[in-house]
Amino acid sequence: MKIAVLAGDGIGPEIVAQAVRVLEALRSDGLRFELEPGLLGGCAVDAAGEPFPEATRRLVTDADAALLGAVGGPRYDMLPRQLRPEQGLLGIRKMLGLFANLRPAVLYPELANASTLKSEVVAGLDILIVRELTGDIYFGEPRGIEQRNGQRIGFNTMIYSEAEIRRIARVAFQAARKRNHRLCSVDKMNVLECTQLWRDVVTETNQEYPDVELSHMLVDNAAMQLVRNPRQFDVMVTGNMFGDILSDEASMLTGSIGMLPSASLDDRNKGLYEPIHGSAPDIAGKDLANPLATILSVAMMLRYTFDQEAAAARIEGAVKKVLAQGYRTGDIYEPGMKKIGTTGMGDAVLAN
Amino acid sequence: MKIAVLAGDGIGPEIVAQAVRVLEALRSDGLRFELEPGLLGGCAVDAAGEPFPEATRRLVTDADAALLGAVGGPRYDMLPRQLRPEQGLLGIRKMLGLFANLRPAVLYPELANASTLKSEVVAGLDILIVRELTGDIYFGEPRGIEQRNGQRIGFNTMIYSEAEIRRIARVAFQAARKRNHRLCSVDKMNVLECTQLWRDVVTETNQEYPDVELSHMLVDNAAMQLVRNPRQFDVMVTGNMFGDILSDEASMLTGSIGMLPSASLDDRNKGLYEPIHGSAPDIAGKDLANPLATILSVAMMLRYTFDQEAAAARIEGAVKKVLAQGYRTGDIYEPGMKKIGTTGMGDAVLAN
Ligand SMILES: CC(C)[C@H](C(=O)O)[C@@H](O)C(=O)O
Ligand SMILES: CC(C)[C@H](C(=O)O)[C@@H](O)C(=O)O
Repeated sequence: MKIAVLAGDGIGPEIVAQAVRVLEALRSDGLRFELEPGLLGGCAVDAAGEPFPEATRRLVTDADAALLGAVGGPRYDMLPRQLRPEQGLLGIRKMLGLFANLRPAVLYPELANASTLKSEVVAGLDILIVRELTGDIYFGEPRGIEQRNGQRIGFNTMIYSEAEIRRIARVAFQAARKRNHRLCSVDKMNVLECTQLWRDVVTETNQEYPDVELSHMLVDNAAMQLVRNPRQFDVMVTGNMFGDILSDEASMLTGSIGMLPSASLDDRNKGLYEPIHGSAPDIAGKDLANPLATILSVAMMLRYTFDQEAAAARIEGAVKKVLAQGYRTGDIYEPGMKKIGTTGMGDAVLAN
Repeated sequence: MKIAVLAGDGIGPEIVAQAVRVLEALRSDGLRFELEPGLLGGCAVDAAGEPFPEATRRLVTDADAALLGAVGGPRYDMLPRQLRPEQGLLGIRKMLGLFANLRPAVLYPELANASTLKSEVVAGLDILIVRELTGDIYFGEPRGIEQRNGQRIGFNTMIYSEAEIRRIARVAFQAARKRNHRLCSVDKMNVLECTQLWRDVVTETNQEYPDVELSHMLVDNAAMQLVRNPRQFDVMVTGNMFGDILSDEASMLTGSIGMLPSASLDDRNKGLYEPIHGSAPDIAGKDLANPLATILSVAMMLRYTFDQEAAAARIEGAVKKVLAQGYRTGDIYEPGMKKIGTTGMGDAVLAN
């Protein structure tokens, strides 16, 4: 197993360091892997003049999986579009064909108070959002800003082929099979032809998975239902743009985005794994960041890319124990708990 | 003043009837207006074979304002796209140039419990969302579903001109001036060129309104922040598609979408006024629907189209009194309150 380690910017290096410690500890279980560091995002711009340099492209092409901290920071906001850290992320997704973004929104019982929603609304929340990640308006052409009749016009293209829709639908149906067999597909078919095709193809694909109960919801209603009654959902599947919005909304329902990992997979389970939170430059380098989302991203890596369910479950079990023991970083701290830092949280997970 | 009354489908006729009673009662204040009924949506398909028939087009062109109940219902979901009730709504917006959609998300203190969010997070919530309504991917060309290389492709075009952005930005800045002088513009400039132009033009327009504090937020973050801390917002402005999603999310934060009105205005304050909720076919004809959002839409009409601030405030004051008196329709009922029906709620507002 060859794993590219892309620490990135802001708190990235700190949280990735703890995740790497956890991974290293699994060597004693017989897990064998090589770790290779690489540059992505702002740090790559600083060192190599571009957010996704050739050396990193080679590294992630050769690797079986990549672990990413986070990219971006206010220092880079002034750069031209192609040089911004996000372009590194978009570039790696596209180059590796990581079309399937899996984003669990899970509420840990110990952190139920962290949610801004009433506990009776979110207790036991466990949604999996499957977001298409290499198509849609993110990559559609034509796109740009142009002069027309003496004024600027900005335009982008939302586009999906039935093959793109079918392969992400299959990932979502398969995920639903491993859970509660319910899939909700989100679109805006009453306005957008592109998403009418989405609905048609997802409906067709249901024939391959007759044991999964498929429903459809318009994106505006989905944004409401996530607030009104999020536990109605098991697996949700949607396009890149709607998925960007809804998965962030869903994760915030848990109140603890410092806890949530994500996986972005190609069609052979090669993957990029990263916490869903950002690079938090304001707390970078202060041993304040919560490394648990990154540590849980390692668990997802072991499960999805390396098929090491036992090792994945061991990490997840350790995280649950740490929470039960009352250890908290600042972002999830409540009075009465034991406040610790980034390294302390790594220690606590290792101890368990 | 000439007002087109478009009752629409489902609960539309019942709730509009109560709003009309309230309007009629204002005649005794010296308010003079003519009401003309018209067909829009499913009822128009039934009667005239299309959701926005010629007679209605003439009616709303001649009128100064239109009051709409709601359109749509499962009976119409099987119709081809051009015949679906929503097309009537999209058609009237486009034909009348109703580019400015104003959607307040206000939490009434008496209904604080209705929210799924903790009361300390939403108490006093008062956001105004300004959504562009006649541009963006809703109307952009090219669009469609086509065969290419033996498979179906669905596509739509997100597009804005700087003139379109500037005029909605001005509406938003002006609205912020009448409130707390803070405007948050929402885009996805890190991915979409179209919304990079949006950010640029909104920023330029700020020079005309130096007394308003402008901030920018990415749409995924906005979807999170609405859940995390909605009271950070005063006025939000965004495009048609993001506005569709975020305004529905924001309204659900209040827990009582039966209370929320909306206005859709052209550049001379001609407007279409409607509750934000749907046609609720399941409770249609049962005297169960909450007419308050429609009654409050009449207040918005008096304020924005007819500049009758006193009459608008009178309606809003009456609604507040009704809530304080404990009258509730089923959707906002809590034990200890007085449950009444659609007509009963109309009576209560009139009595106040
Ligand atoms: C950084 C940005 C380009 C990215 C996206 O929009 O996909 C991020 O928001 C995400 O969800 O991973
Ligand atoms: C019915 C539909 C076309 C409409 C929209 O998407 O604009 C509705 O959701 C709204 O927000 O008024």
